[in-house]
Amino acid sequence: MTRSSAPVQDLPASSSDGATVRRPRRGAATQAKGLHTRTVILDAALGLAAHVGLEGLSIGALAEMTAMSKSGVFAHFGSREELQIAVIGQYHARFDAEVFRPALAEPRGLPRLRALYAAWLRRVTVEIDSGCLYISGAVEFDDRPGPVRDALAAMVETWRQALARAVRLAVDSGHLRADCDVEQLLFELHGLVLALHHDARFLRRPGAVERAQRGFDRVIAPWLPTAGSVAG
Amino acid sequence: MTRSSAPVQDLPASSSDGATVRRPRRGAATQAKGLHTRTVILDAALGLAAHVGLEGLSIGALAEMTAMSKSGVFAHFGSREELQIAVIGQYHARFDAEVFRPALAEPRGLPRLRALYAAWLRRVTVEIDSGCLYISGAVEFDDRPGPVRDALAAMVETWRQALARAVRLAVDSGHLRADCDVEQLLFELHGLVLALHHDARFLRRPGAVERAQRGFDRVIAPWLPTAGSVAG
Repeated sequence: MTRSSAPVQDLPASSSDGATVRRPRRGAATQAKGLHTRTVILDAALGLAAHVGLEGLSIGALAEMTAMSKSGVFAHFGSREELQIAVIGQYHARFDAEVFRPALAEPRGLPRLRALYAAWLRRVTVEIDSGCLYISGAVEFDDRPGPVRDALAAMVETWRQALARAVRLAVDSGHLRADCDVEQLLFELHGLVLALHHDARFLRRPGAVERAQRGFDRVIAPWLPTAGSVAG
Repeated sequence: MTRSSAPVQDLPASSSDGATVRRPRRGAATQAKGLHTRTVILDAALGLAAHVGLEGLSIGALAEMTAMSKSGVFAHFGSREELQIAVIGQYHARFDAEVFRPALAEPRGLPRLRALYAAWLRRVTVEIDSGCLYISGAVEFDDRPGPVRDALAAMVETWRQALARAVRLAVDSGHLRADCDVEQLLFELHGLVLALHHDARFLRRPGAVERAQRGFDRVIAPWLPTAGSVAG
């Protein structure tokens, strides 16, 4: 998994499944079919990982789910690790399409930051029943160093950088104070999302979405130009 | 696992291993030895669970760790599930002793709430290398209903109630405004702790402890009597 060299406002959508595509050496039709099959396997893998975790993925289970042979699945993903990394990339591509891209339609500054956060909450809310791969993956792999953890951390970091850029644009646009502590603000927003995931998914506690929504205004309040004093 | 009926300011320390102690029918010395052995097994189980998760626990692995026979371990914990619940209780007892009890020495109100939060952060910081059973357990069991999930949720809920009581005492003492949204405040504090765990343990990002510390003052700021307006 190589880190994207794209500008920070762009999550890498291309090559986003995080693995080198194995090119069949035959005709274009075969190649298209191969890519289609790969996508079918990845979609199944994403659904499976949401329930059993990345570590629960296996070539055998996917072969069964997709009614393919083990060697058929193996031809597309040479190892379980390669499969796990491809699933992370697929998840990232969806996150990109559902959370990041739509918010770019909003004007730079606070409107876009607000839209990014709102889309993020929507995504986590939709995932209450399946779980967020970034959040569950972080706990699953926090003490398992290796390429899978690295791929996951790189995706989380890419998302953080996109948010950081949105915050900095809000500062540049005069929507937030020049002395805004970007890292502190992001830390607090991320905390709200993690608390939402915990309360709604683990405790099944009502009201978590509303609390996460209200939290946004509290987190940015100290950094609004109208704020009386810096709450640092 | 029965919920404690103790007042909310008291985390249940007694019977905190969450399982009925099997009483040997022989003399007091034998009984004491049995309890000692049980504690030795539980300590080993807690260490193991910190690394492999509650689901990674097995009677077999513990027998190996404690140089006992499988049937010896089995005599103390009749099933893997009973063992998992006992480990949660043991974790809770430690959390109680290290986080909750010491803070009671502080005066009621904001000083005690601050002490509780500081002790919580210290605990999570110490656990950066092993992981917090409450946080990792929540992700591990959020889609596995049953007695283990229930035991874990009850412990998390007990801790939340203890914090809620500390916030209400701060309101009663006039340290926080009467219109303080206790649940919102707790949601935001919990988010800071989750963000700390994520950033320090998964991303190995420096500065997370300081951000979680600074976050406390931001979270309570809107509810201080001196706050100009309610940030709701």
